[in-house]
Amino acid sequence: MDRVVLLSTGDELLCGAIADTNAQWLSGRFFELGLEVVAVLTVGDEPERLRWAWRTALELGDLVISTGGIGPTSDDLTTETVAAVLGCGLRFDEPSADRIRQMFAAMRRPMPENNLKQAFLPEGAVVVENPLGTAPGYRASPRWGEGAVAREVHLFVLPGVPREMKRMFTDTVEPWVRAQRGSGLTPLVQTFQTFGMSESALDEEIAAIIQPGEARIGFRASFPKIAVKLLVKPHPGESTAAAEARLGELAGRVRERLGGVVYGEGEMAMEEAVARALAARGARLALAESCTGGLIGHRLTEVPGISAHLLADYVVYSNAAKSDLLGVRQETLVTYGAVSEETAREMAEGARTRSGADVAIGVTGIAGPEGGSRERPVGTVCFALATAEGVVSRRHQLWGTRDWVKLLASQFALDMIRRWALGHAELAPGFRR
Amino acid sequence: MDRVVLLSTGDELLCGAIADTNAQWLSGRFFELGLEVVAVLTVGDEPERLRWAWRTALELGDLVISTGGIGPTSDDLTTETVAAVLGCGLRFDEPSADRIRQMFAAMRRPMPENNLKQAFLPEGAVVVENPLGTAPGYRASPRWGEGAVAREVHLFVLPGVPREMKRMFTDTVEPWVRAQRGSGLTPLVQTFQTFGMSESALDEEIAAIIQPGEARIGFRASFPKIAVKLLVKPHPGESTAAAEARLGELAGRVRERLGGVVYGEGEMAMEEAVARALAARGARLALAESCTGGLIGHRLTEVPGISAHLLADYVVYSNAAKSDLLGVRQETLVTYGAVSEETAREMAEGARTRSGADVAIGVTGIAGPEGGSRERPVGTVCFALATAEGVVSRRHQLWGTRDWVKLLASQFALDMIRRWALGHAELAPGFRR
Repeated sequence: MDRVVLLSTGDELLCGAIADTNAQWLSGRFFELGLEVVAVLTVGDEPERLRWAWRTALELGDLVISTGGIGPTSDDLTTETVAAVLGCGLRFDEPSADRIRQMFAAMRRPMPENNLKQAFLPEGAVVVENPLGTAPGYRASPRWGEGAVAREVHLFVLPGVPREMKRMFTDTVEPWVRAQRGSGLTPLVQTFQTFGMSESALDEEIAAIIQPGEARIGFRASFPKIAVKLLVKPHPGESTAAAEARLGELAGRVRERLGGVVYGEGEMAMEEAVARALAARGARLALAESCTGGLIGHRLTEVPGISAHLLADYVVYSNAAKSDLLGVRQETLVTYGAVSEETAREMAEGARTRSGADVAIGVTGIAGPEGGSRERPVGTVCFALATAEGVVSRRHQLWGTRDWVKLLASQFALDMIRRWALGHAELAPGFRR
Repeated sequence: MDRVVLLSTGDELLCGAIADTNAQWLSGRFFELGLEVVAVLTVGDEPERLRWAWRTALELGDLVISTGGIGPTSDDLTTETVAAVLGCGLRFDEPSADRIRQMFAAMRRPMPENNLKQAFLPEGAVVVENPLGTAPGYRASPRWGEGAVAREVHLFVLPGVPREMKRMFTDTVEPWVRAQRGSGLTPLVQTFQTFGMSESALDEEIAAIIQPGEARIGFRASFPKIAVKLLVKPHPGESTAAAEARLGELAGRVRERLGGVVYGEGEMAMEEAVARALAARGARLALAESCTGGLIGHRLTEVPGISAHLLADYVVYSNAAKSDLLGVRQETLVTYGAVSEETAREMAEGARTRSGADVAIGVTGIAGPEGGSRERPVGTVCFALATAEGVVSRRHQLWGTRDWVKLLASQFALDMIRRWALGHAELAPGFRR
């Protein structure tokens, strides 16, 4: 199994209605499994094109993962296409039919007869259970090709609904792939979530401490976060424990080198990292947001249970609100301007004292596209963090469009809170592009 | 030009690093141009696979749009692949080389010599200007196939950077496509942005007023918004003006049928619709958010210039903050609970009077996953809108995960403000699934 091909079907993928996030997700999983996705083929619900796509996929790959086209309606053609291309018949799978009937009974809804279409599978196919929906998936491992070039190929047919597809991949496809390859060939992965360095700066830092032969390095940038992945393949004959130890040693080098730039490991989000750091310190937080307009509060409240640590968020968009809600002095606004470290400091201090929080952060800046000046161009953002010990502030020049500036400013603010709660000496990363 | 094939290249698309949003965007544009995208092929930066993909694309389509692989580095292989597949040489395009040199000079950065690689184009190709980056694109219209089946095909090679690709498509590719087809064949499009009905409910409503032959109907659902598109193709011999009048009449039927469910036309966002409605009424707004945690403020502040209409956003996550910041009475919190219409009303009224706004909205609910009860399950959200005339409130049962509940609640709240500012009789849609 060296060549994986993904086959995505559905008219909705070819008229701009949705992006093919299934292909992205599956590609990421195969990357971590150490298998190469050589191509993605996307076609609509059209019989001739579907047959073309299946033949092409089986020609090109030795493992084909299909998503979509196994629902109950007449434009769901995947199963009959697979049977036609493989030259086999369909069989009615009674256990799958029972499960479909039971799901409708459990929802107390009458079952439209066409739902039983989903219980027909190509002969020789093995059911892949779908715990979250009615359409079962399946696997088949036919021979493909004529005479001397005939070879065994494997194909999985999964639904297009991301939630169902992902669950079935994790429950069934991934364990099957691991079993086929033997554990020795599947890489071990360690993921670091970072903030404060560009991808190329991270690349340089890691190149300085890890040699190309020691691990494969992957980056996942989805603004404003960049994840770094270390992948280690067990050597021939090496035990999993030994490979894990090798990965652990490399991970230690990364932690030491990157320091506070790493805010989490695995899939941890910045919001979650902040919530954990606040919980560890037993600290209660207040926010004072101007240019971010509520985004910091919104992001933190994505974390369940944050109410124990987030007291209030004062979104003070106007000068009047800055004075009335937080006590920012008129003099400060006039002398230094609304976008200044001085104003940010009074915002943070006002939020802390008025809410009774242990720590408060104030953010004020120019998100654009209007409002910039020579001294304070668009993207100027001032941050202040207030505690009982005093107030520290920073001014940063951010970049990009309005939404980009807001998002990056929220990330800086969250990182500042995290660094404070963890007792870091430096409260803000010296951002390195 | 009946069959469009999209060819996306880049290793980053096959290891989970990014989703192929270019393919989605291009598919949507071709849908509006009335052309069918029959397939998307995605391959990495690997010479053999790239050649396979190009041959396959030219076999299958008569218009091929390629994105990616035209940068300056050694793994950018698109142009040499195109030349190899078409069996032509490369030529050095001096004007493109000049432009690349000038861009580096303007940035005051030395130009790495490999950037001039981007000035090589296949013989016979026509430059497609890239106003936003160094890599020029190009078009070629070779004959493809042998003997009797040979036919003219068209191919466009564009960069993978979405911003550059979109601009070049809009500036050059789209006008070229329209010119090739003649205006008579390109459909006219009218888009409606809606909130308050599911896709299937919208489908039913529109089926009741527009016959299948009158227009093609498309839906674009990206939660929580659903856009409805009407597409009308000019009849043979019909003038553009007459077709526009026909579309205008159909659009009028949709406006009348859907009423307040339509919040905008074209690509208007809900945030923008609210900002315009507030500006039209000359009203100043305050927000009081509990479960949405700042999301409403964040969304509104995505609109440049909103500071003229948004005074303050009180994010009062705790009971103490509800009392201290907005004067919600202890008695109300104890008797009715923090998630109640009564609390929402006092939040809205507190935000209005304390900020001096004309209108304020209060939102409190249970975003989950914890905190639900039999009387108030997860997804219960209460809304109140306060003005000098009084307070109205609503309770809705929303659904889904925490982020989903927050997003949907923010959409309800924004829609309520919009409906108030426009003077609608009903302030909240009777949500129809």
